Amino acid sequence: MKMALRACLRTKPGLTALLSQLSCSGHAAARRAPALVAQRSSSSTSQKIKVDFDQSSGVAVMHMQSPPVNSLSLEFLTDVCIALEKLEMDKSCRGLVVTSSQPKVFSAGLDILDMYGKSPEHCAEFWKAVQEMWLKFYGSNMITIAAVNGSSPAGGCLLSMTCDYRIMADNPRYSIGLNETKLGIVAPFWFKDTMVNTVGHRATEMALQLGLLYSPAEALKIGLVDQLVHEDQVLTTATETMTKWLAIPGILNISYTCHFFHLWCCNLVCTICSCVCQVIAAKKIHLSQDF
Amino acid sequence: MKMALRACLRTKPGLTALLSQLSCSGHAAARRAPALVAQRSSSSTSQKIKVDFDQSSGVAVMHMQSPPVNSLSLEFLTDVCIALEKLEMDKSCRGLVVTSSQPKVFSAGLDILDMYGKSPEHCAEFWKAVQEMWLKFYGSNMITIAAVNGSSPAGGCLLSMTCDYRIMADNPRYSIGLNETKLGIVAPFWFKDTMVNTVGHRATEMALQLGLLYSPAEALKIGLVDQLVHEDQVLTTATETMTKWLAIPGILNISYTCHFFHLWCCNLVCTICSCVCQVIAAKKIHLSQDF
Amino acid sequence: MKMALRACLRTKPGLTALLSQLSCSGHAAARRAPALVAQRSSSSTSQKIKVDFDQSSGVAVMHMQSPPVNSLSLEFLTDVCIALEKLEMDKSCRGLVVTSSQPKVFSAGLDILDMYGKSPEHCAEFWKAVQEMWLKFYGSNMITIAAVNGSSPAGGCLLSMTCDYRIMADNPRYSIGLNETKLGIVAPFWFKDTMVNTVGHRATEMALQLGLLYSPAEALKIGLVDQLVHEDQVLTTATETMTKWLAIPGILNISYTCHFFHLWCCNLVCTICSCVCQVIAAKKIHLSQDF
Repeated sequence: MKMALRACLRTKPGLTALLSQLSCSGHAAARRAPALVAQRSSSSTSQKIKVDFDQSSGVAVMHMQSPPVNSLSLEFLTDVCIALEKLEMDKSCRGLVVTSSQPKVFSAGLDILDMYGKSPEHCAEFWKAVQEMWLKFYGSNMITIAAVNGSSPAGGCLLSMTCDYRIMADNPRYSIGLNETKLGIVAPFWFKDTMVNTVGHRATEMALQLGLLYSPAEALKIGLVDQLVHEDQVLTTATETMTKWLAIPGILNISYTCHFFHLWCCNLVCTICSCVCQVIAAKKIHLSQDF
Repeated sequence: MKMALRACLRTKPGLTALLSQLSCSGHAAARRAPALVAQRSSSSTSQKIKVDFDQSSGVAVMHMQSPPVNSLSLEFLTDVCIALEKLEMDKSCRGLVVTSSQPKVFSAGLDILDMYGKSPEHCAEFWKAVQEMWLKFYGSNMITIAAVNGSSPAGGCLLSMTCDYRIMADNPRYSIGLNETKLGIVAPFWFKDTMVNTVGHRATEMALQLGLLYSPAEALKIGLVDQLVHEDQVLTTATETMTKWLAIPGILNISYTCHFFHLWCCNLVCTICSCVCQVIAAKKIHLSQDF
Repeated sequence: MKMALRACLRTKPGLTALLSQLSCSGHAAARRAPALVAQRSSSSTSQKIKVDFDQSSGVAVMHMQSPPVNSLSLEFLTDVCIALEKLEMDKSCRGLVVTSSQPKVFSAGLDILDMYGKSPEHCAEFWKAVQEMWLKFYGSNMITIAAVNGSSPAGGCLLSMTCDYRIMADNPRYSIGLNETKLGIVAPFWFKDTMVNTVGHRATEMALQLGLLYSPAEALKIGLVDQLVHEDQVLTTATETMTKWLAIPGILNISYTCHFFHLWCCNLVCTICSCVCQVIAAKKIHLSQDF
């Protein structure tokens, strides 16, 4: 029975189904059939995303270039998701490095202009896109490394946490963290769960309650990032690390971030199911009293 | 669906309902309608609890003064719960500092005289009161800080762990920990879960299995307390910290200890539900065979 | 209701039932009625397992002596389980130290020859035996200490992690870890869960994804082992630690590793139940539509 469960957890269609359930309907833009991925060492470019894919190494680098600070607007999130989806469908792409082309910032997080003073429909669309980014990155079958070459607050921190490994520029002017509280916002529970998986329960409690932003050194200390290097070395260190990782025989059999993510989803679905189930059972008792 | 779940988790009435379910019936004393809370900067005093509430800052300080060592007897637990409930109902009260008026001890933990050689009814009443204290503190909507100005074994440690932050007197003669094992007792699983949330899984395993009491320095190292200050500074540091925290814009939108507690309760209820559900389903199969 | 749940978790028959459910049918060999345990200070010896049991202290030492490297073959796993079962049934046995008689190695892990190129039936039998070892050690009611006097990769690491405490030889030539990935294998999810309980979530992610083997010093640092001593002192330190632990009054009321294991099993069963339950409910809706 355990083996069956395990097999079920590992089955890709199972995950796909789960993802579609969880992301409800997905937003229309991301559902477009992805264009074919460029062949050989080449770069495909949307306005705000530049992807360099080296087919010989199987490693893609996604440069976020949405001026001024890679704010995660509905439009930009959609671009990011489409780019990721294309790479995911190309079986020759085994590793993805995410980095920023903007100076001093990895991503400033969710675009506040897309959250306030908009129609409920727009807000719903926007939050679906945030969740879809999280689902696609956290559930990716590629090895993913965040080359955090600048500040990374709020949604930017979330994006980096969905990757398998985080390398940050060792510049004390940069900071990283889920600082939503300081903006008077409550971070969604899946932000929190992702952080608990990264730095543990108590550190997450403090970080979220106080809306803490960490310097690179502090972030390394609590485990929010895995490695600090000089600003100029972030991207090269990321690609070198990726090369080393991809040489490990079984590493692509399972991405562990992905694996933990499966379990997280299963638990969530299980929680929802048992609630639904209880309601059904309750109703049926009522029904049977009518018999 | 996730958003709906999240909304449901955040709804206060949901929690209240959950709390009443979990605490079963609550004990009679705690159900009394709470008296009105004193206005302005003032102090309300039961025999064993003294509450100073500064209405301008929104911060209350609860002094435990049950000689000799603030043992958590049924009577004292009831006093504590009533005092907390009053503050909780006063919307102007946003922060609570818990401390001791007794020398050298924060709280000596559960009153052993209320556990042994008593009628089953008394024991049931007593354990309900312990659980109610835990539920009310861990699920509080106020910011809570424990000013641990003395030793805090067993139930005293539990009380401090239900707060959002723990400041302890840096006196090596004091100690803190869940030392039930050393007394031949097994700590209830919700004691354990609360400690896991504070110091992690493995540290909790060792602490509970061996009934460890930690010096302030050791407690700080494993994360059982968050800060050490000189004995004379515990209370002032606690109120200063509270002032800083209450200045953070979104901090009262959600108390994270409270938020994690919601999830913990939901998981528990979910576990119980699915068991109940299974039994119902099993019986119904039987029933349907009769049709 | 919580108390009822707690009581239920603590009930031994409940666990036994759970274990039998989880281990499905158990493999035939392990079901043989265990022989009587030798009296007094004595040693009982199978070919590959030597057990020294000191009845005065209540402590047994299990020496693994399956040349050359204590590989966990189906046969050896069966021997280990039978030996453990015998000790478990002897109420005078309160503590178990597991160690190796082979030079330089604690256990090399699962026997790769029992996994590949065998019939599906053999593979199923083999994995059942692995799981049974894990279930019996992790769920043991004795205090268990691993005296890791040599390298302990993969399944050897798992075996040590199921014990309450790990003492390792401080020899930098030795290593310990779940290195399955490096062999192109994916560790089962219960390997992962056991490691999460030991070193936390993020350290486990990294360890499993990269198939890391840790030196004793590194293993101590991340908490994979609890203590390092000179190679000659591993076994004596283990028995001395056991003596100290067994002197703690309530320690045998509950083995916390065991307690956490109960909860783990309950969660798993609960997950499975709610799935089953959902299916049943779904079918019943269908049925009621027929009425």
